[in-house]
Amino acid sequence: MADLELMRTLATANGTKIVLLVMDGLGGLPLTPDGRTELETAHTPHMDRLAREGSTGLHIPIAPGVTPGSGPAHLALFSYDPVRYEVGRGVLETLGIGFDLQPNDVAARGNFCTMDEQGRIVDRRAGRIPTEECVRLTRKLQENTHLDGVDIFVLPVKEHRFALVLRGEGLSDKLTETDPLVTGKPPLPVRPLDDSPEARRTAELVNAWIAQAREVLKDEPRANCLNLRGWGKDPRLPQFPEIYKVRAGAIAVYPMYRGVARLVGMELIQHGSDIEDEFAALREHWEAYDFFFLHVKPTDSRGEDGNFEAKVNVIETVDRFVGDMMTDLQPDVLLITGDHATPAKLRSHSWHPVPFLLWSRSAMPDAAQSFGERECARGYYGVIPANELMPLVMGHAGRLTRFGA
Amino acid sequence: MADLELMRTLATANGTKIVLLVMDGLGGLPLTPDGRTELETAHTPHMDRLAREGSTGLHIPIAPGVTPGSGPAHLALFSYDPVRYEVGRGVLETLGIGFDLQPNDVAARGNFCTMDEQGRIVDRRAGRIPTEECVRLTRKLQENTHLDGVDIFVLPVKEHRFALVLRGEGLSDKLTETDPLVTGKPPLPVRPLDDSPEARRTAELVNAWIAQAREVLKDEPRANCLNLRGWGKDPRLPQFPEIYKVRAGAIAVYPMYRGVARLVGMELIQHGSDIEDEFAALREHWEAYDFFFLHVKPTDSRGEDGNFEAKVNVIETVDRFVGDMMTDLQPDVLLITGDHATPAKLRSHSWHPVPFLLWSRSAMPDAAQSFGERECARGYYGVIPANELMPLVMGHAGRLTRFGA
Repeated sequence: MADLELMRTLATANGTKIVLLVMDGLGGLPLTPDGRTELETAHTPHMDRLAREGSTGLHIPIAPGVTPGSGPAHLALFSYDPVRYEVGRGVLETLGIGFDLQPNDVAARGNFCTMDEQGRIVDRRAGRIPTEECVRLTRKLQENTHLDGVDIFVLPVKEHRFALVLRGEGLSDKLTETDPLVTGKPPLPVRPLDDSPEARRTAELVNAWIAQAREVLKDEPRANCLNLRGWGKDPRLPQFPEIYKVRAGAIAVYPMYRGVARLVGMELIQHGSDIEDEFAALREHWEAYDFFFLHVKPTDSRGEDGNFEAKVNVIETVDRFVGDMMTDLQPDVLLITGDHATPAKLRSHSWHPVPFLLWSRSAMPDAAQSFGERECARGYYGVIPANELMPLVMGHAGRLTRFGA
Repeated sequence: MADLELMRTLATANGTKIVLLVMDGLGGLPLTPDGRTELETAHTPHMDRLAREGSTGLHIPIAPGVTPGSGPAHLALFSYDPVRYEVGRGVLETLGIGFDLQPNDVAARGNFCTMDEQGRIVDRRAGRIPTEECVRLTRKLQENTHLDGVDIFVLPVKEHRFALVLRGEGLSDKLTETDPLVTGKPPLPVRPLDDSPEARRTAELVNAWIAQAREVLKDEPRANCLNLRGWGKDPRLPQFPEIYKVRAGAIAVYPMYRGVARLVGMELIQHGSDIEDEFAALREHWEAYDFFFLHVKPTDSRGEDGNFEAKVNVIETVDRFVGDMMTDLQPDVLLITGDHATPAKLRSHSWHPVPFLLWSRSAMPDAAQSFGERECARGYYGVIPANELMPLVMGHAGRLTRFGA
C-alpha cells in the first residue's frame, strides 16, 4: 500500500512533466475464451510502442474480487487507500459541479423520480428529464423550502440528478438513503445510522425537507418526487499537490471526476467536452502545471452500453491523441491506465485487474509487446494495488529523494 | 489481505453455484531440474481446458517461505488470515470427529505412545494401534479418570490418535505440549505459557490427569503412555456463510478438514470415503447449497509417501470427475487448487506457492495453456496470498456489490 507520509517526506519538486491518462473502464474481456479484449482489438500503434519502451503491469483498484465505483477507484489511482478514505457520492457530485463545500456541510446525491397516486415510485429517473428541467426544479426547491437554523443548497447536476447540501452546526452524514432501488415501492424515510443526537436531528431535518420538497413538486408531470442517497461530508483528504510537491491540474468532463480531483487538491482546468478538447487543454496549460490528470469517459460509457466495437473506437481515438502528445509535449512520465474494468461483455464495471503502462526514459522495457490486458500481465511490475502507481510515477519522474543515506 | 468486514458489507446472495475443489498438497516439484512436477506430469485434459478458459495464478498459504499445517492452510483458503486466526490442532481434531465443543472448553490432541521401563518413549505412535484399540483405551480412560470441578471427555480419533477435552470454568489453553518429539526421552510435564492463575491451574489439572491416565494404561502392551499437544479453544471465527451469504456444504473424508469446515460454519455433508463418493455427494446435494468445499486427501498422502507416480494417478482420477462435474452440474464458478504443496521429492508439506485455476464465464483467459505450477506462474492474478482467493471467487460469482459509487 502507498504510504502517504513516506511520500510526503521523500517527494521533491524538480520541474518534470507528468501525465496520468485515465481511460475510464479501460479493462475489458474477450467475448469468447479465445478472443481478444477491447484494448487488445484496438489498433493502437502509439500506445503499443510506449508499452514496448516502458514498463507494464496490472493494478487492483480496491481489493481482489471487488468491483469499484468510480470515486474510490480514482482515489486509489491518486494513491489514497480507498477503503480507509471512503467518500460519500454526494460529496463527489457536489464538488464536481464546483460547489465550495465547507468542512461541516452534509451533502447527498439527489435523483428526481416519478411517483404514482399511491405514492409508489414508477420511474426512478423521472424519464431522464433534460438538464434545463433539472435547473428549473432545483431553483423552485431552493426558493420554496426552508429549515430553521440550516442553510439549504439545492444544486442541479445533469438530467434527473441534483445535489443537496445542508449547512449548519452539528449536522451528521450518518444517515440511510431513501431510494428503494426498485420501482413499485414508495421512497424510504431517512433514519440515523448511529445513536448520536446529531444523526437523529439531521434525519428529522432531512425528512422535514423531503416533505416540503414533495409538496413543491407535487404538480410536476414527471419529477413529482425525489430520492436522496450517498450522504457524506468533506473527508478532508491529505492534499495531493502538497504530498507530491506538484502543481496538479485536472482535465475531465464529468462532474464526478472533477469532484474527486478537487477533493485531493487538484486545480480544475476549463475545456470543452470532446476528447479532442481535453488534449487541446493539456497543450494550452502545459506550462502551468507539473502533473496532469486527463480523464476520458467514453470508454466506460461504451462498455456499459455493451458496445464492444464502439469502445474499441474510443481507444483508437485516444491513441492518436497520445501519439501527438508524445511528439509535441514530450512528457517526462506518462501513465496510461483505467480506473477499473468495464468489459462490454458484462455491460458494467467489474473487479478484473486493470492494465497499465508506465513510460519514461528511466522505465525498464519489459516483455509486453503491445498495450493489452494479457501483455500487461507479463509486465515488470506484476499485479499491484492501484494506490502504488503514483509512487511509481513519482519515482520515474525523479521526484522521490533517496530513503536513508 | 482479505478484509472480512469489507466482504461482509459487499456480499449478496444471487443463486450462483460455486465449487472450491482442494486437492490436498497439490503443489509439487520436479525430481530433476529439467523435469516436470506431479501436476505437470498428470494427463488432465479437463483441468487443462479450464486453465485455458479461466484465470490462473499461484497462492501463498501462510507467508513466504512458511510451510503450512493443514488447518491454517484451509483457514487461509476460506479467506481467514491464518496468523491472526490461529486455531489449536486439538480444536480442529475435536470438531472433526463431530464433538460439540463449547466456548469455554479446552481441547488437546492426544497420541498414545509406548514407554519403556525407564519411562522413556520408545514409539511415539504406540505401533499405530488399530482404531478399535483406540476406542477401547479412550473408553477405559473416560471411565477411570476424574478431576474435581472439571468434566473430562476422552475421544477416539483414529489409530493412536485421540482428543482430550476439559470442560469447566476458568480453564486456559496457554499450555506447553508433552511430546518430546524424539524417542528415547520421557514425556514432558505440562507448564503454563503465561502467568495467569487460569493457565497455572489448568496445567496442574492436566498433569494430575496425565498421572491418573498413565496409571490406567500401565499394563497395556503398546499404548502404556500418552502425549498431549495442540492445546486450544474454539476461536469463534467469523462465520463463512454469514460473511458471504452462501449456504456452504463441506465434502471431506478426514476429521481435520471436516473440523476446519465446521469451525467456519459450513455444514458437513455425509458421504463415503472414496473420491468417487465425494463427487457423488456433490451431485446429490447440488440443490441444497450454493457453495461446496470438496476436499481430496490422497494427493497429500501420496506426496508424503514420496510416491510421485501415485500422486500423478490421484490427480488424473480427480480430473475425470472434474470433467463429469462440468458437464453435469455446470457450476458458475470453480476454483481448483491445493491447500499447500506436498512434493513427493520432499516427502512432506512445503512452503512453495500453490497453483490455482479459477474458472467462470467472466474470467479472463490468460497465458496458462494447462494446469501446472509453471503455467500458473504466467497467470493473470500473479502470486497472491491464499486468503485473497475467496474474494476473487465471490467477485467472479457476481456476489460482491460495487464498492462506492
